[in-house]
Amino acid sequence: MSSSIANHPDRLLPADPGVRAIARSLHKDVENLPIISPHGHVDAAMIANDTPFPDPTALLLSPDHYVTRLLHANGVPLEQLRVGGTSEIGALDAWRTFCANWKAFDGTASGYWLRQEFVDVFGIDDLDIREETAEATFNALQAKIDEPGFRPRALMDSFNIEVMATTDDPLDDLSAHRALADDASFTSRVLPTFRPDAYIKFWGADFAAKADALIQAAGQGATGYDGYMAAMANRRAYFVEHGAVSSDHGSHSAATLKLSRDEAAALFAKGMAGTASTAEAFAFEAHMMYQQAAMAVEDGLVMTMHPGVHRNTHAATLEAFGPDTGHDIPFAVDFATGLQPLLNDFGTAKGFHFIPFTIDETVFSREIAPLAGFYPSVFIGAPWWFLDAPDAMMRFRSAVTETAGFSRSSGFIDDTRAFCSIPARHDASRRVEASFLARLVAEHRITEERAHEIIVDIVDAAPRRAFKL
Amino acid sequence: MSSSIANHPDRLLPADPGVRAIARSLHKDVENLPIISPHGHVDAAMIANDTPFPDPTALLLSPDHYVTRLLHANGVPLEQLRVGGTSEIGALDAWRTFCANWKAFDGTASGYWLRQEFVDVFGIDDLDIREETAEATFNALQAKIDEPGFRPRALMDSFNIEVMATTDDPLDDLSAHRALADDASFTSRVLPTFRPDAYIKFWGADFAAKADALIQAAGQGATGYDGYMAAMANRRAYFVEHGAVSSDHGSHSAATLKLSRDEAAALFAKGMAGTASTAEAFAFEAHMMYQQAAMAVEDGLVMTMHPGVHRNTHAATLEAFGPDTGHDIPFAVDFATGLQPLLNDFGTAKGFHFIPFTIDETVFSREIAPLAGFYPSVFIGAPWWFLDAPDAMMRFRSAVTETAGFSRSSGFIDDTRAFCSIPARHDASRRVEASFLARLVAEHRITEERAHEIIVDIVDAAPRRAFKL
Amino acid sequence: MSSSIANHPDRLLPADPGVRAIARSLHKDVENLPIISPHGHVDAAMIANDTPFPDPTALLLSPDHYVTRLLHANGVPLEQLRVGGTSEIGALDAWRTFCANWKAFDGTASGYWLRQEFVDVFGIDDLDIREETAEATFNALQAKIDEPGFRPRALMDSFNIEVMATTDDPLDDLSAHRALADDASFTSRVLPTFRPDAYIKFWGADFAAKADALIQAAGQGATGYDGYMAAMANRRAYFVEHGAVSSDHGSHSAATLKLSRDEAAALFAKGMAGTASTAEAFAFEAHMMYQQAAMAVEDGLVMTMHPGVHRNTHAATLEAFGPDTGHDIPFAVDFATGLQPLLNDFGTAKGFHFIPFTIDETVFSREIAPLAGFYPSVFIGAPWWFLDAPDAMMRFRSAVTETAGFSRSSGFIDDTRAFCSIPARHDASRRVEASFLARLVAEHRITEERAHEIIVDIVDAAPRRAFKL
Repeated sequence: MSSSIANHPDRLLPADPGVRAIARSLHKDVENLPIISPHGHVDAAMIANDTPFPDPTALLLSPDHYVTRLLHANGVPLEQLRVGGTSEIGALDAWRTFCANWKAFDGTASGYWLRQEFVDVFGIDDLDIREETAEATFNALQAKIDEPGFRPRALMDSFNIEVMATTDDPLDDLSAHRALADDASFTSRVLPTFRPDAYIKFWGADFAAKADALIQAAGQGATGYDGYMAAMANRRAYFVEHGAVSSDHGSHSAATLKLSRDEAAALFAKGMAGTASTAEAFAFEAHMMYQQAAMAVEDGLVMTMHPGVHRNTHAATLEAFGPDTGHDIPFAVDFATGLQPLLNDFGTAKGFHFIPFTIDETVFSREIAPLAGFYPSVFIGAPWWFLDAPDAMMRFRSAVTETAGFSRSSGFIDDTRAFCSIPARHDASRRVEASFLARLVAEHRITEERAHEIIVDIVDAAPRRAFKL
Repeated sequence: MSSSIANHPDRLLPADPGVRAIARSLHKDVENLPIISPHGHVDAAMIANDTPFPDPTALLLSPDHYVTRLLHANGVPLEQLRVGGTSEIGALDAWRTFCANWKAFDGTASGYWLRQEFVDVFGIDDLDIREETAEATFNALQAKIDEPGFRPRALMDSFNIEVMATTDDPLDDLSAHRALADDASFTSRVLPTFRPDAYIKFWGADFAAKADALIQAAGQGATGYDGYMAAMANRRAYFVEHGAVSSDHGSHSAATLKLSRDEAAALFAKGMAGTASTAEAFAFEAHMMYQQAAMAVEDGLVMTMHPGVHRNTHAATLEAFGPDTGHDIPFAVDFATGLQPLLNDFGTAKGFHFIPFTIDETVFSREIAPLAGFYPSVFIGAPWWFLDAPDAMMRFRSAVTETAGFSRSSGFIDDTRAFCSIPARHDASRRVEASFLARLVAEHRITEERAHEIIVDIVDAAPRRAFKL
Repeated sequence: MSSSIANHPDRLLPADPGVRAIARSLHKDVENLPIISPHGHVDAAMIANDTPFPDPTALLLSPDHYVTRLLHANGVPLEQLRVGGTSEIGALDAWRTFCANWKAFDGTASGYWLRQEFVDVFGIDDLDIREETAEATFNALQAKIDEPGFRPRALMDSFNIEVMATTDDPLDDLSAHRALADDASFTSRVLPTFRPDAYIKFWGADFAAKADALIQAAGQGATGYDGYMAAMANRRAYFVEHGAVSSDHGSHSAATLKLSRDEAAALFAKGMAGTASTAEAFAFEAHMMYQQAAMAVEDGLVMTMHPGVHRNTHAATLEAFGPDTGHDIPFAVDFATGLQPLLNDFGTAKGFHFIPFTIDETVFSREIAPLAGFYPSVFIGAPWWFLDAPDAMMRFRSAVTETAGFSRSSGFIDDTRAFCSIPARHDASRRVEASFLARLVAEHRITEERAHEIIVDIVDAAPRRAFKL
């Protein structure tokens, strides 16, 4: 196993020997800093209950749509990977299919993380991931999973996770978060995040039922749009009370819009009745993005937004396996135009923090860096989703730094539901930051002394600053 | 001549000595593999008839709009280059003009290919390409061209071209292809490609006449839209019988659309009458893209699409010199939205292969890699047209690999009508692949052993897989 | 001070020792060539009057929105930086605030230029730029500013500026330019540039009053649209007489449009009456872009265009501090479609020069290089605004060169109102050009001999050629 590239101390660092030496020394500064994960999709109840992981397939394969989508592209039906719940296929058979196709992950971000997990977290050799030894690796992983020390709470500790935010339904009672906060023996912070998408998008499944439930639960007796807005504010407050630091919004576009109360109420009524046009649904969403910012100015929640993705593009897969199964496809976004109403009114509001994320690289230099280079509220969201990969992160730094410097970033975001990949993801990001800074040092654009300060700031201070941690 | 950079064994390889050594060894694996060219614009009849090349200007200059456009930009009227047929200017004079402006090609892809051709194919020194020695190089090239061994069939052999696809009119009788297939002494495969653009775009010259001819030829007695659709399917079948593996579509946008038979028939009638609006013409094209996919699911032809180019933007040049004379200008495309109807219905259809090409780099990481990372039908089209150049190909690999890996590519596409440039183009691509992989090896992201497997897969297996060869 | 990275001879050059050595030798060729600055925002009257600079804050900080915007993003109110005129804050206090936040500029283009200025122009150590030594650096800068030799005319000489264009209102009498031209003791050329934006955009402040003034001043007695067009042509002629070589256009989009005289006159009347819709205002602007090109074909002024920026996006900042205060935000542009009417009619017109600039990087390879690779009138505008930074300039060269070579560029554009930053900006550009060429040499894509010719052409001949200097 010592020969695995996952163990190489210089992995991801630039090839030039001089630059690599600088990068290595920068990486050393941050290698062991605690993990701050201000946005992700781990289940808080799993941690609160310290639920044991069932088996390797359920832990590493079936729920990770980064992984299953590429196997699907290579011809593997999703049911063979036990995606979306029940399946005729056993866990070992699914694992064998994964192993047989493991080479497809060479060069991908998922492949890098998985290899790192196999070696660092599970102590198995990634060279053994192949069809012939599938049963052996499955058993080795299972044995590791069954160890008493391999439980979520112990891993939170061994992964050195200081803060981890989850993503939660506005009506979630947040009991798991409360239990963790009340548990003096648990030293990490697990924070909820307010994610109201399903209560805003008219076109979502069960929008009206959800909005109705929201009004019932927190509308304080008001009805219709007024009840809806009151409930939205109340549930945000509930999240704040339970430690939330941000609200998160997967809006269709980057549009924001200020409607009058009456205009908004009329749209809302159409949405509830199922009679709104697509344009009206988008207008209401844009209005609600504006309103979330208005509420954020009041209650202090950081607002994150990641527009520009067609969700669930393949109807047959959605029907058979549910959402988040790999067929969300990004498209171009226009933050510059879309955010104008929001930023014109709240861009310099005291304490307001707005973090745009994007899967459209073109906005990094064109829109995001200029916005974050003027508005004190705007922090540059780390490369998101398909872009949280080594080369993409390097392109990101090159695209934003010359305009906005290093002080305006959100810090790294792992955005993952793959719990065991968290250390590999953060370490990869730290290696890329070290590599980028090392080049600037080698080109005499920053001093080596400053680079050592900057990397600590990027890795540790930036997420605390942007997310008010 | 030994001092020409065209002879340097390390050309296009990365400068870092460590990375270069790895790249050199990777390139060696594929340097002599046969050329697979699944899409291009060489004339099959030229090969079937083994037509001698007339003169250096007609072979290398006048028909190559990559070359003539840049001379035009530098102030040379196209008639001085004998573009578009007859000209008052002699072949040698045109050649002299080219030589006088040869320095304009420094740093360009065309310049790289031409230099390589001069040295490798014609055995002349590229340093002699200058106005003063224009006559000498013209004569040297002519002497080479006049050699009995310098005929298309012999060159197919010496270029080591195993497969070469041409691009053909749906009503072409494909007699040249048949003659080549029937000739046991000819061992390369020259395959037709079904390209029905002119029979789909209402705005094209003579659309109605062409569609009418199609219906007459293959509509089996049906008329109007029904005859048109029957003829389309019949001609595709004819191409399949004659060895075609793909249909090719230069659609305006990436839009696809499923219309009912009656809606489509009504649009078709307007198109035939010349009364369709621009929006209707685009809708019909989008519908026909959907229909080509539907037919592909039946007959197995791979579908390639390369939208996003304003064709023939300069009316005066079009009138004087015809199409394909250098003034086609790309614009932004939206595959994510446009392809949804097509991929929702056929994206997982058994045996369906869809290959999007683009001259808009922004879609590589944002749209193409995510699509090819889920849909088993989608293969990532190689960098196209202005992008089949060393730096652009490197950006392409960086943009797609982290999401989609190495298994989802189309393989290199030369897309050329410049027959003698084919070896240089494929070799350049192989050098870039070696360089990209070498960096990943140097950064400990893939093992050197795997890189050796991957480069052979990319160069040789990928085009066979994507194009069903 | 000898330890400052601003003094390092290899700053901005690539880290690889072999490539760096080539780059260093290429940079030496152009290091001391005179500065040609064909577009910028220095005030001609300041030079004509040889106005002393008031203080370090007024010279280096308050008017430079590249600098103040990033301080603002980091939480500094603009009034603390004495932006936009009067302020309660003293110059030294503003300077102290800048020094306290100086680290925010690490990695930015502005930071690079400022460091270079501190060391090269003012002879102070950039390591002393910190809050504790703010008074000392302020005083040192003030002492330098107060030296008799530190006046604009002397600096024009010591900066080695051969040509510098200013940007001027169409009704400017250009007396400062005339005075400089008439002064035999002043050897630099200071040229006016015709910038009619405020007289074209219906939505601008005081459009009607401005257009009216234009007609009064130069309409030759004609009224309405006809007087407006006559006045436009007359003022262009006046600028030509006073040495102008170009007109400059900050249009909203890249759209151009050919309207009939009557259509245009009707729109103009609406614009004057304040009744034009947004769409009509954009249509009139597009028409006027077409008309400026038509006039350019007649009078020979080079036409530069830089669309795609939302101006003054933050209303409160605009009201308090005026325009050009850091909140102009770029958005995506479409040159390919927008320029078609203009280029179809004038793209090959004798002597017409058109230079598109962009803050949208995506058009470099997709649109600009293909346009400049065909149309003899189109020269590739240097990276603009947020993109005139080392990494962005490198991406630019990589994006355009493979399609358009090195012969089609505008040369470097500093576009600055920060007079003392001009040498640092041009030197940075020259270092990037040397670095890009050095890589091509190292990859055996151009010969070292040619690289030496090309860098001189890029730096010195290109701007003279593109701007007819």
